[in-house]
Amino acid sequence: MRVAFIGLGNMGSAMARNLIEAGHEVTVHNRSRAKAEALGPGVRLAESPAEAVRDCEAAVTMLADDTAVQEIVWGESGIVRGLPGGSVHLGCSTISTALARRLAAEHAAIGQKYVSAPVFGRPETAVAKQLLVVAAGEGETVKRCSPVFEAIGRQTFVAGKEPWQANAVKLCGNFMIASMIESFGEAYATLRKAEVGPHLFLDVMAALFGSPVYSNYGRLIADQKFEPAGFALRLGFKDTRLAIETARECASPMPIASLLHDRLLEAIALGMGEIDWSGVAKLSAIHAGL
Amino acid sequence: MRVAFIGLGNMGSAMARNLIEAGHEVTVHNRSRAKAEALGPGVRLAESPAEAVRDCEAAVTMLADDTAVQEIVWGESGIVRGLPGGSVHLGCSTISTALARRLAAEHAAIGQKYVSAPVFGRPETAVAKQLLVVAAGEGETVKRCSPVFEAIGRQTFVAGKEPWQANAVKLCGNFMIASMIESFGEAYATLRKAEVGPHLFLDVMAALFGSPVYSNYGRLIADQKFEPAGFALRLGFKDTRLAIETARECASPMPIASLLHDRLLEAIALGMGEIDWSGVAKLSAIHAGL
Amino acid sequence: MRVAFIGLGNMGSAMARNLIEAGHEVTVHNRSRAKAEALGPGVRLAESPAEAVRDCEAAVTMLADDTAVQEIVWGESGIVRGLPGGSVHLGCSTISTALARRLAAEHAAIGQKYVSAPVFGRPETAVAKQLLVVAAGEGETVKRCSPVFEAIGRQTFVAGKEPWQANAVKLCGNFMIASMIESFGEAYATLRKAEVGPHLFLDVMAALFGSPVYSNYGRLIADQKFEPAGFALRLGFKDTRLAIETARECASPMPIASLLHDRLLEAIALGMGEIDWSGVAKLSAIHAGL
Amino acid sequence: MRVAFIGLGNMGSAMARNLIEAGHEVTVHNRSRAKAEALGPGVRLAESPAEAVRDCEAAVTMLADDTAVQEIVWGESGIVRGLPGGSVHLGCSTISTALARRLAAEHAAIGQKYVSAPVFGRPETAVAKQLLVVAAGEGETVKRCSPVFEAIGRQTFVAGKEPWQANAVKLCGNFMIASMIESFGEAYATLRKAEVGPHLFLDVMAALFGSPVYSNYGRLIADQKFEPAGFALRLGFKDTRLAIETARECASPMPIASLLHDRLLEAIALGMGEIDWSGVAKLSAIHAGL
Repeated sequence: MRVAFIGLGNMGSAMARNLIEAGHEVTVHNRSRAKAEALGPGVRLAESPAEAVRDCEAAVTMLADDTAVQEIVWGESGIVRGLPGGSVHLGCSTISTALARRLAAEHAAIGQKYVSAPVFGRPETAVAKQLLVVAAGEGETVKRCSPVFEAIGRQTFVAGKEPWQANAVKLCGNFMIASMIESFGEAYATLRKAEVGPHLFLDVMAALFGSPVYSNYGRLIADQKFEPAGFALRLGFKDTRLAIETARECASPMPIASLLHDRLLEAIALGMGEIDWSGVAKLSAIHAGL
Repeated sequence: MRVAFIGLGNMGSAMARNLIEAGHEVTVHNRSRAKAEALGPGVRLAESPAEAVRDCEAAVTMLADDTAVQEIVWGESGIVRGLPGGSVHLGCSTISTALARRLAAEHAAIGQKYVSAPVFGRPETAVAKQLLVVAAGEGETVKRCSPVFEAIGRQTFVAGKEPWQANAVKLCGNFMIASMIESFGEAYATLRKAEVGPHLFLDVMAALFGSPVYSNYGRLIADQKFEPAGFALRLGFKDTRLAIETARECASPMPIASLLHDRLLEAIALGMGEIDWSGVAKLSAIHAGL
Repeated sequence: MRVAFIGLGNMGSAMARNLIEAGHEVTVHNRSRAKAEALGPGVRLAESPAEAVRDCEAAVTMLADDTAVQEIVWGESGIVRGLPGGSVHLGCSTISTALARRLAAEHAAIGQKYVSAPVFGRPETAVAKQLLVVAAGEGETVKRCSPVFEAIGRQTFVAGKEPWQANAVKLCGNFMIASMIESFGEAYATLRKAEVGPHLFLDVMAALFGSPVYSNYGRLIADQKFEPAGFALRLGFKDTRLAIETARECASPMPIASLLHDRLLEAIALGMGEIDWSGVAKLSAIHAGL
Repeated sequence: MRVAFIGLGNMGSAMARNLIEAGHEVTVHNRSRAKAEALGPGVRLAESPAEAVRDCEAAVTMLADDTAVQEIVWGESGIVRGLPGGSVHLGCSTISTALARRLAAEHAAIGQKYVSAPVFGRPETAVAKQLLVVAAGEGETVKRCSPVFEAIGRQTFVAGKEPWQANAVKLCGNFMIASMIESFGEAYATLRKAEVGPHLFLDVMAALFGSPVYSNYGRLIADQKFEPAGFALRLGFKDTRLAIETARECASPMPIASLLHDRLLEAIALGMGEIDWSGVAKLSAIHAGL
């Protein structure tokens, strides 16, 4: 496929590389040109989003947040000005369900397609082609994108016919992880005050849950190793905020999400926005006087 | 070893049977005699706790709550009246850290030993000898109990020298599970209102966390199959209450535990005390108007 | 003063009438003309916001929410197109701090003034000229508006030099009331299950706090008299959401506000959006199985 | 009446003095004799609780917590050993509803009467005979105690026929105050970050609620004047814990109470147990990075 790829952060670079390796014709655009050049000779570089998507079949965006997506899509030389009729904008960023609805509507209004396909995984998962892809959109269009999904991930889930449904799943999934992080923080704090080391509890939880996610995050917190950030706390806060907005749109209260919102906000107030989001667990220790 | 076993519920019966199969000399006592007889011919039956422990090396208790343990230990014909000096009371029940401290102190005062060794696992795990054992107490005494641990579980963790530390770990572990259940409930409710089926989300979470605990509980909630109860909600409430009491003793606030307390209490107020504790997830649906 | 008044709901009509009675030259505009005509002969009617403010010294807006304000200000024939240079837009609506900042910036950019002056009080308070006014903006401009404040309220507080500061105070004030409502709900529910009538508790609280706000809201809840709504629950939800947004902008976690958000959202999910916001107290009773 | 009075803290001393002034024959007992002597010549001193109540018609207890009450009532030389048949133990302490039930049952079993009559007010209120009394118990017995109530307070409320109902009301009342304190803390923190001074907000709230309780506590927090403690934070924590226990007995979730529990516990973990309970508001500022 002819694929345009916009947004070459840690995640995006790995995904773009895997698309190239899978034999797709990839054109990339990134704000800083160095990251685009780092992809090597097999890739075409475009000066703007509009140029990058000029004759692609699918245009993948992998950006930090709603603001970045809006700029790339509707800004001067944005995607909407270049994407051929019938081609698909494949939104992999973790954005709000409200923005996903707007993207679906505005692309459709000018004859373009939109599919949301946020992914689960950290940078090393992306490198290993092991991302989980959650896609949603018109059945036929989603199907057309499957070569892209196969190139970047290990499994694809179809969440529904409305693109925003995939974003709702992604936000709820991140909520599940955040909830686990906070729970670890609370349990560790109490146990440290009971003079039980966090690593002992980590071992028990690793055996109990049998989950690499528990082992990895549990270890980060037990080791208090929050830098460098695999996923910055301020982004985790953004996702929690978006989960709450989705819950509000759906009129479905999520009290743990609200609690996470307040904890992450406290962490930001204390200057912890750039450490790994698992660092929010420090607050439980601080609140316990540790 | 000569082992006394008191408390033949679903968990206790399976554990006692595994002790017998491992070749230990087992004497049992249970309030209702039928469950004791069901263990078959290889086991001695005792009329009272005191008689059951008369010449044992270790006396295992596996009871529902603090009240039951107190009655069995200090009641008329209680364990303390029969346990030989130097023999160990091995408390496997999920009890309060306060009671564990009292047990340690009072057994010690009359020359008996006490080790806390609560276990993680549901009845089928107990049958399969796959329990996780968390033990705490004097190093030498804990070591002496290892034949018992090997007969009932797949792995043993030593939490510390004070018996109550094992109970703190057990309560925090159950807290981790309860927190996961509630998080599933909130995510499912929001997604149902977004017209995304819970089973789709379950599949994503199963792939993301790779944990049988997520798959099992996630399925129970997606299927809304809360009966028969694997673990009754009122017991889950009791454990959450005990976790909060431990957190209070340690001066370590656990806001998710408080939130779980209120949810489980609401479930009890609505008459759901006897269904599986994963049934607390129904409340998120109810609160969302589903 | 020559005053334009836009937004003749229950609150706005009473405020406009008081301005007329105080001798100001008042021109009004309202979506539905009937409410404007109901003010009687002493008032000029304008066809559009732009026309209403054409030669006023101060233009008061008293509207339901951010969306309404944006339409009136920047819509076709909006205020910005008519307000004379140097004249003041006096925003009395309960809006977001973000919108207040935008109003300040955009009015300033075209030589107009903006002052936020949200008010505390229910319709009957407005009729009685007993509103509390919280104003913020440039000192000189705020001072110029004092004849307006005197005509509508019993006391004016100046919150700062930035208009949005007044909105922050207003949102925090409504938060204080919402918190009191929820607390009454929880206490009443527990006491009803203890077979203590809510009216007995109301009497004690009336004596303890000595506050008409406690007496009035406490009685509404004790009587379960939530219709007609003095202040619709969905507006209370909106204000709570705005308080949380302000808290987020300020990086200051407000856990009770988050809790109120979830309760009010639950009430909306259950179809209670149009009853009085004190009706959120019903949820505590429902959760207790009453 | 012949009244025995046990517990001469700041509150108790003022109450005892008012009983003497009202012309009752008062016999007192206090752990430290100095406080008893400070009451002056018109009072009889007893060596023990049992002796103090020997021939009284009503025995008032005003003690710090459940433990103190249990010791005074059932300890060696406790009240139950001296109180004449038919005489009333009038419990004014803020104790658990569970202990109130036990007191009612055990006094009744030996032919003595028990009435719960906790009071609202701070030491200066007690001095001014302005306490609010909430009484519960058998109608006839409560009526018999009215000379005592009249001597110490400005108003008496009868909560029900079961003594513990009065304690439930008292605990819920303290919950209302704690909730107000926490709400002030959250609002002040957000407003300080918005550069609005707490005293401005205090003035608005004083005008809005018109309540001395708001004015007094709001000022303590705005001034950050938490010492000397009018009511120690650790006692406020105890009362919040008791409110949650009552809510649990009644199966009525109180999420704000849970939140208060965690805040107060955090304050205790940080070493703030002895300052005024309004000091819990500092946490909101700390969490906001102030």
